[in-house]
Amino acid sequence: MFDRYDVIVVGAGHAGCEAAAAAANLGSKVLLITMNMETIAQMSCNPAMGGVAKGQIVREIDALGGYSGIITDKTTLQFRMLNSSKGPAMWSPRAQSDRKRFAEEWRLALERTPNVDFWQDTATSLLIEDNKVCGVRTSLGIKIKSRSVVLTNGTFLNGIIHIGEKKFGGGRTGEKSATGITEQLVELGFEAGRMKTGTPPRVDGRSLDYSKMEEQWGDEDRGRFSYTDVELPKEQRCCWITYTNSEVHETLKEGFEKSPMFTGRIKGLGPRYCPSIEDKINRFAERDRHQIFVEPEGWNTVEIYVNGFSTSLPEDVQYRALTKIPGFENAKMFRPGYAIEYDFFPPTQLSLTLETKKIENLYFAGQINGTTGYEEAACQGFMAGINAHQKINEKEDLILKRAESYIGVLIDDLVTKGTEEPYRMFTSRAEHRLLLRQDNADIRLSPIGHKLGLINDARLEKVNQKIKNADTIVAYLKNTSIGPDAVNTVLEIQGTPGISQNVKMFQLITRPQISFADLRKADTIFDKLLGNYDRETVEQAEIKVKYESYFEKELEIVDKMKRMEDQVINPEFDYHGLISLSKEAREKLMKIKPRTLGQASRISGVSPSDISVLMVHMSR
Amino acid sequence: MFDRYDVIVVGAGHAGCEAAAAAANLGSKVLLITMNMETIAQMSCNPAMGGVAKGQIVREIDALGGYSGIITDKTTLQFRMLNSSKGPAMWSPRAQSDRKRFAEEWRLALERTPNVDFWQDTATSLLIEDNKVCGVRTSLGIKIKSRSVVLTNGTFLNGIIHIGEKKFGGGRTGEKSATGITEQLVELGFEAGRMKTGTPPRVDGRSLDYSKMEEQWGDEDRGRFSYTDVELPKEQRCCWITYTNSEVHETLKEGFEKSPMFTGRIKGLGPRYCPSIEDKINRFAERDRHQIFVEPEGWNTVEIYVNGFSTSLPEDVQYRALTKIPGFENAKMFRPGYAIEYDFFPPTQLSLTLETKKIENLYFAGQINGTTGYEEAACQGFMAGINAHQKINEKEDLILKRAESYIGVLIDDLVTKGTEEPYRMFTSRAEHRLLLRQDNADIRLSPIGHKLGLINDARLEKVNQKIKNADTIVAYLKNTSIGPDAVNTVLEIQGTPGISQNVKMFQLITRPQISFADLRKADTIFDKLLGNYDRETVEQAEIKVKYESYFEKELEIVDKMKRMEDQVINPEFDYHGLISLSKEAREKLMKIKPRTLGQASRISGVSPSDISVLMVHMSR
Ligand SMILES: Cc1cc2nc3c(=O)[nH]c(=O)nc-3n(C[C@H](O)[C@H](O)[C@H](O)COP(=O)(O)OP(=O)(O)OC[C@H]3O[C@@H](n4cnc5c(N)ncnc54)[C@H](O)[C@@H]3O)c2cc1C
Ligand SMILES: Cc1cc2nc3c(=O)[nH]c(=O)nc-3n(C[C@H](O)[C@H](O)[C@H](O)COP(=O)(O)OP(=O)(O)OC[C@H]3O[C@@H](n4cnc5c(N)ncnc54)[C@H](O)[C@@H]3O)c2cc1C
Repeated sequence: MFDRYDVIVVGAGHAGCEAAAAAANLGSKVLLITMNMETIAQMSCNPAMGGVAKGQIVREIDALGGYSGIITDKTTLQFRMLNSSKGPAMWSPRAQSDRKRFAEEWRLALERTPNVDFWQDTATSLLIEDNKVCGVRTSLGIKIKSRSVVLTNGTFLNGIIHIGEKKFGGGRTGEKSATGITEQLVELGFEAGRMKTGTPPRVDGRSLDYSKMEEQWGDEDRGRFSYTDVELPKEQRCCWITYTNSEVHETLKEGFEKSPMFTGRIKGLGPRYCPSIEDKINRFAERDRHQIFVEPEGWNTVEIYVNGFSTSLPEDVQYRALTKIPGFENAKMFRPGYAIEYDFFPPTQLSLTLETKKIENLYFAGQINGTTGYEEAACQGFMAGINAHQKINEKEDLILKRAESYIGVLIDDLVTKGTEEPYRMFTSRAEHRLLLRQDNADIRLSPIGHKLGLINDARLEKVNQKIKNADTIVAYLKNTSIGPDAVNTVLEIQGTPGISQNVKMFQLITRPQISFADLRKADTIFDKLLGNYDRETVEQAEIKVKYESYFEKELEIVDKMKRMEDQVINPEFDYHGLISLSKEAREKLMKIKPRTLGQASRISGVSPSDISVLMVHMSR
Repeated sequence: MFDRYDVIVVGAGHAGCEAAAAAANLGSKVLLITMNMETIAQMSCNPAMGGVAKGQIVREIDALGGYSGIITDKTTLQFRMLNSSKGPAMWSPRAQSDRKRFAEEWRLALERTPNVDFWQDTATSLLIEDNKVCGVRTSLGIKIKSRSVVLTNGTFLNGIIHIGEKKFGGGRTGEKSATGITEQLVELGFEAGRMKTGTPPRVDGRSLDYSKMEEQWGDEDRGRFSYTDVELPKEQRCCWITYTNSEVHETLKEGFEKSPMFTGRIKGLGPRYCPSIEDKINRFAERDRHQIFVEPEGWNTVEIYVNGFSTSLPEDVQYRALTKIPGFENAKMFRPGYAIEYDFFPPTQLSLTLETKKIENLYFAGQINGTTGYEEAACQGFMAGINAHQKINEKEDLILKRAESYIGVLIDDLVTKGTEEPYRMFTSRAEHRLLLRQDNADIRLSPIGHKLGLINDARLEKVNQKIKNADTIVAYLKNTSIGPDAVNTVLEIQGTPGISQNVKMFQLITRPQISFADLRKADTIFDKLLGNYDRETVEQAEIKVKYESYFEKELEIVDKMKRMEDQVINPEFDYHGLISLSKEAREKLMKIKPRTLGQASRISGVSPSDISVLMVHMSR
């Protein structure tokens, strides 16, 4: 019934969709098996993509030739560049999407991708021969052969949903959970654990009083995720902000004794950085209010997502607490919030390609690796799809470096350090975040995507043109002098001293108070020059010229690190023989088998002196 | 958490959606409880509405103020008036919809209906006091109070899905089944039974060779379902026709020994008139081919619905047989066909308002009453929603007569005769089908909808105007003479004898060969007159004038029947006392408690002589 596939992807969440698209676009024959074709790319929780550090990941996926950015752009209800008042390394695009459109566009994008086949079914086990995966078996009892398998089961493996004291099996509300795969993997010697996450209640927008909330609009001059020129929706939608108060908190506390988290019924660890409202009240007892973002679920629906109010307290407590939030006095709930517990596989069992160390050609991506978030899932799926294709075609692995992408940081963190709680990305996790900006993801990564074959010549040419144009702008500023008459008014307005003789414009732009907008006013030729280029090119030039010295310093550090980082360690290396290593380091190193000295240095329990020992040994 | 509602509707299929909208539009506070808000108005099988007799039902719902026609019109991919070469009583509109759009538009329509609240949850039992329903209890353990409940659980009650020898619980593929309600109702003394239905596999449109199939386009000058002026999609999509052959049949037969139907694993009775392909091969062994309609599932998706190939044979047999159909040689399956068994409640346990006889204010509608089909479900839900509202407000019941609507025929058939197999509508079920046409549903029913308050003045006025305008056209034909010079060419072209002297145009139009189009050519004033009116008005006039004599005869019969029909029987009437009735009649009459003599006459087992006995008795 089925030919042998190159790659089978199990699960069509964010990870699975990117995996299928990437492998297929590289030329693999791909089968995407998912439990329900109506829920492809369903957003389990918040209908939003991006945000701090996560927005950078979406741009990276796009720069490499993935689909998440394009789908998000097509379906955006509201776009905001978060942290735009801070330095450019902190700028983080975030978009809210129409939930149904997002899922639909993903499905259509996959349908339009040649080489992607679909099969609606549940994978119940893997076919394995000689420690090599060779297909999957499904709940219909069908065996489907393949050269590799990417598992992206999300929150579905033995998923249990909790609301107050009630619990039922399920992968998401209203959907079945999946069994069999964990059990088989554990039998094969994999380690599995439990994690949990949660989602807030949804309410009827018609029952809210928006006059009691603050409006929150999207950016007027809005940005985007994709570097391609996908068309954006013409309009944007308003969101609102309101706050909890001590009355809300007191009401929630009434439910604490029935809380599945506080009574220990949920064993899995939850995301510390995306806590439930009960968690927030508990941990930040001193705060008398928390922010609530009131976000529409789509262009037309009245359903509202109550961002910031994730909870698994009993539904009547949820309801009573909600009605004490300003604007929610008459709120009607559509669906209660809930928590879900599910299986994950500690990601130290993976190599940097996301292939499992135990079973060849088997890749794990997404939530099952202990991460949380659509973006984290999507980028893993994307990388796993690429590496599955590369491996079976005996091509080079794609391993992104920590200094070149958040994706590299994420995978290196997971594989090297593992994670005790649901892992999400933060800018602070990236030691070279100054270089890993949302504005330059295309410059950093499109050449890699192009080399792989996921980015076509025209797109690469566009990136090169952007670099060239930005350089032209920078060169103009470095070469062109400006005099007091032209510029002093502008300088004064911005509260920075005037000049008394001609200086290079470059000198002025490095002043923090002065922006391109100011110089455009002072120099009409400059203004005209910028008029020739698109928004992203101008932005790129401005960032480059203003922060050049910081970037250069950072690059030097990267370079130094790189020399150590890149020193490859033989995977067969026997650390037990190196008795000058600490006992802990020996054990960890044997377990993780780092690929490079850099990776070894980031293993928790491996100290700098252990690294020195290794370096000395290796330089012999 | 919840106020007491007027009406709780359980289930958001076609029945539940119409029920909720109708009751709310009449002014009831309605709560729609459904297992998953993402699957509201999901089409379980074919993404199409209407067809023979079913299309008439959709127009009737629309004429009364329901939503099904509007939603279908908005989401139509292709529209065809079936049987348009036959008499107007056979004309049957049929539309294919974009599956996702259809569900989405329904949900949005409900969201825009004030008084409809939503709650995502599973109803597990009814709250009952003194044989009166007073709410429901859900899987979260919540009790929600109401004055009445409409149950529309569709195929979900103890649903079991079969594919070959495999079976699993589920209400539809990928969705959970619902338990609890049947068990409680049986405990309360309700009778429950099992039925089954099935659906064909879905395939990848990219894998089909359309050049080997016949194209099937929609009507060029396309009609519509709704009498409102909802905007129709500009374009239509092509479908295709292909055929099975003996090779396909032989392949299918290889799976017969694993067929859940033939091996007796499925106990429920299936729809005789919507048979599976294995049924067709079995029952019509003499036929060496069956028609297959190849229908897209949406505007953009490549998913294809293989209409005519419903099956629950093992998926590999489905696949192999499919690939032997011309054009399907390289077909890729997305999802296999399957059969589903589910609980229903023999509908003789209901009164004509669809209220249960045992439990007051409890209504059943849709598939759980032993019917099959979206249209059948929708109209029952609509009627149940109305009657629930009317009852709790002590207003008049809405019971449509057999002579005024298919809806009346359907409900009367169900309640009076019950059904042994999934009941679907046919024109042959309506003894007065000549009057129950798709063209005059508005004339028949909008006054009733208006009286209820579901049709506003403007809409009723439009109907009255249509009647008046049609009458003007008819009067013109009756009053205006035409001469040989003007009309003979046209008559000759149509192969009907010329005239030798002036005649009234009316005389010519009654000739079967002559249409309005012909007379327009012969008489410019007539042509101009028709130019003033819309398509439906002109059609109405043409039907009226051409078939007037038939209609008049039919109306006389109706009138005679009506006198008997309307004779009300006291529900407390003790048939046991009337010993001249046959024993079977006495028992059936005690069980069914017909409201009128007419209803009594249609109970199977009640003979015309029993009716005479009753008539004599009642006229005393
Ligand atoms: C209730 C809830 C709340 C959440 N809250 C947050 C939050 O607040 N913040 C945050 O960042 N993230 C949150 N998440 C996490 C976010 O949804 C996930 O990180 C992201 O969806 C993971 O993507 P994925 O592709 O790994 O898996 P998923 O999106 O879960 O997709 C898994 C897919 O695999 C399919 N599948 C599973 N098993 C099988 C099988 N055996 N055979 C075939 N198909 C299978 C499923 O049908 C589904 O299509 C939440 C998730 C849930 C469920
Ligand atoms: C596989 C399949 C094949 C079919 N094939 C055909 C065909 O070939 N021809 C044909 O005419 N018809 C066919 N049908 C029938 C057609 O789908 C139904 O007639 C129609 O959908 C019935 O509408 P309904 O509103 O009664 O129920 P459904 O459309 O089944 O809707 C039931 C709704 O109730 C909800 N629900 C159920 N129980 C609960 C509960 N306890 N609490 C809360 N919510 C609940 C469900 O989530 C769902 O939203 C088929 C159906 C199926 C499933």
